[in-house]
Amino acid sequence: MSEQTLITLLTDFGLQDGYIGVMKGVIAQINPFIQTIDITHQIPPQDLAAGRFCLMNAYTYFPGGTVHVAVVDPGVGSQRRGVAIQFSGGYLVGPDNGLFSGVLSLSPPIIAVELTNSEYWRTPNPSTTFHGRDIFAPVAAYLASGISLQMLGNLIDAESLVQLPLVDIELKENKIIGSIQYIDHFGNLITNIPKSYVEGKTWSVLSKGLNITSANTYSDVDEGNLVSLIGSHGWVEIAVNGKSAQSELELNVGDQIEIELII
Amino acid sequence: MSEQTLITLLTDFGLQDGYIGVMKGVIAQINPFIQTIDITHQIPPQDLAAGRFCLMNAYTYFPGGTVHVAVVDPGVGSQRRGVAIQFSGGYLVGPDNGLFSGVLSLSPPIIAVELTNSEYWRTPNPSTTFHGRDIFAPVAAYLASGISLQMLGNLIDAESLVQLPLVDIELKENKIIGSIQYIDHFGNLITNIPKSYVEGKTWSVLSKGLNITSANTYSDVDEGNLVSLIGSHGWVEIAVNGKSAQSELELNVGDQIEIELII
Amino acid sequence: MSEQTLITLLTDFGLQDGYIGVMKGVIAQINPFIQTIDITHQIPPQDLAAGRFCLMNAYTYFPGGTVHVAVVDPGVGSQRRGVAIQFSGGYLVGPDNGLFSGVLSLSPPIIAVELTNSEYWRTPNPSTTFHGRDIFAPVAAYLASGISLQMLGNLIDAESLVQLPLVDIELKENKIIGSIQYIDHFGNLITNIPKSYVEGKTWSVLSKGLNITSANTYSDVDEGNLVSLIGSHGWVEIAVNGKSAQSELELNVGDQIEIELII
Repeated sequence: MSEQTLITLLTDFGLQDGYIGVMKGVIAQINPFIQTIDITHQIPPQDLAAGRFCLMNAYTYFPGGTVHVAVVDPGVGSQRRGVAIQFSGGYLVGPDNGLFSGVLSLSPPIIAVELTNSEYWRTPNPSTTFHGRDIFAPVAAYLASGISLQMLGNLIDAESLVQLPLVDIELKENKIIGSIQYIDHFGNLITNIPKSYVEGKTWSVLSKGLNITSANTYSDVDEGNLVSLIGSHGWVEIAVNGKSAQSELELNVGDQIEIELII
Repeated sequence: MSEQTLITLLTDFGLQDGYIGVMKGVIAQINPFIQTIDITHQIPPQDLAAGRFCLMNAYTYFPGGTVHVAVVDPGVGSQRRGVAIQFSGGYLVGPDNGLFSGVLSLSPPIIAVELTNSEYWRTPNPSTTFHGRDIFAPVAAYLASGISLQMLGNLIDAESLVQLPLVDIELKENKIIGSIQYIDHFGNLITNIPKSYVEGKTWSVLSKGLNITSANTYSDVDEGNLVSLIGSHGWVEIAVNGKSAQSELELNVGDQIEIELII
Repeated sequence: MSEQTLITLLTDFGLQDGYIGVMKGVIAQINPFIQTIDITHQIPPQDLAAGRFCLMNAYTYFPGGTVHVAVVDPGVGSQRRGVAIQFSGGYLVGPDNGLFSGVLSLSPPIIAVELTNSEYWRTPNPSTTFHGRDIFAPVAAYLASGISLQMLGNLIDAESLVQLPLVDIELKENKIIGSIQYIDHFGNLITNIPKSYVEGKTWSVLSKGLNITSANTYSDVDEGNLVSLIGSHGWVEIAVNGKSAQSELELNVGDQIEIELII
């Protein structure tokens, strides 16, 4: 058992109630040498799309073999499956509700199991409302401690894993029509248009009667000015230097964005 | 000195000012091998009842021997005592103001000391406003490093530890009258009625002219509907599937709840 | 490589988007034995003065040799330099924009380098908007792993490091005129007047027509009453016992405060 074992946690539990501390306690009860890293616990309640986005943009920055636990779980206690999935970057553990479909669209699954073996749960009678504590955290701790995926339950067809439908982007001559998929802490508006569509080009974002030009970084425009750039996640982003683009433009997740390629 | 040594932290300090980082730095100065786990730092300022609730519902999920530091401390710098308490689950360190009375009602104290030995403080002249940094964190670090409880100060009678009065529940034939003791991040309303009163039964919560029926989990009712269930903490809870019951019902901590047992 | 290696993180990134988790992942990819401690990630966006304040008041509580990464970086991607600085307490890594000038006013720099050697970056083509992930976190991980400062880039004159102008305090007979430099989670108003000016004395704060007397701790006055004291950071502070002085007085950072020394 190596001391480098790493588990990441991503949830919509918030930090106020001690739910995350309890999950880490359960992990430490099984193996106190495991290190945990919080990705975020402030996914808006039940917002699977935001959870999928954050996990998909984070997982590549962790060591190979890392166990990623993600719990945004409106269907907890229902018939939805709990799963553990092996993929090239490590392991995914959580509800089978599409939360992992972003990661898996980039790094396909190798093996998947349904978490049916209660030997690796905290208790054979898990709470109906907190599988994070009673199933996912302990399963992740065992995985990170060297238990093989196959021990955790029945193999399932990776094709059967739930997919979360993605909003498509549309191409029309020199235009790309996409939408806002995420808004971060700074109020930066992150679209669903990947950088490959605009890299090496200049472009304008047409929104709310405005024409927002592209640049390399926030400070390429004067403070308070709008700018579009390739954000750190690798998506086209709309920002305001030194301010919140969300407050400035009053746009929300799902709102349509039109991009005009100039060169 | 084992590397498995674990300290948990629960405070009302929030995360914005660096107070928690500083407490962890003080611990690392004494023993860099100690692992710390945050239970929560978002207890509402000076809210002892919320602090007691969160600690009482979290401590059983940590390894035996864990040192739990809790600091919700409106009387810091006054005559209120600082204490360290040994109990079956490990140790409790913090102000003697009732914060630990929830844990101790479930797991009685074995030995208690008043923290009078300033050798184990960060400085013999502690700040009058931040005993978390100057007394409780260093004392916990020494405890977690193998210093015996008796070294930390004078033995005190465990009977003398401050109790926080709990709101009683009332039983009337097939009715239970309790109250809301905590509201979590999701807006779930957690009552002070333990699951032992309703387990294996069906029940209704009567509140604001509504009749809220019991179920096993959130998704047993349609999205947006009210439901009562046994929450993951082991208390009767009122929730809305996919939404906040607090927003829906406009109830607050302390508000009365009436339960009617059906079978 | 010792396992005690410690990196602290202070940013304005917030905790919601996974940016901090990603920085920790990058550190773990380089050296999974490094322990990270969050000072805070809730510096108000782009607020260099608040960042400088929190770091200056936290760094002394960490073990010698700790690597402090701080990223409040409105000029990310522009010509502003990235730097690593050795000082008596350890190392500082981040943008050269004055964020470190508080620490360095107390503990002068020993050596400073501009981060020009991309061998120690995550990638030679860093994002223009997230140097925390692509430059500062990996550089800190290498420093904490024993790489010498000089390997990270060109030596620069420590005199050339950007200073953030501080608001002066003014002395007039028995009066001190200062201002509020920070407001914490509890609503305590922290002035820029160091304790050395008032220690051993009694004083009054004159503000908004009120005369707020000094005391040792919050609970020296009745609940709800205003009080001035030496706060845990070592600055004169205005507080309300059990409440928020900010809400009570409606004062903000930068507002002037007048102190009258009584003895």
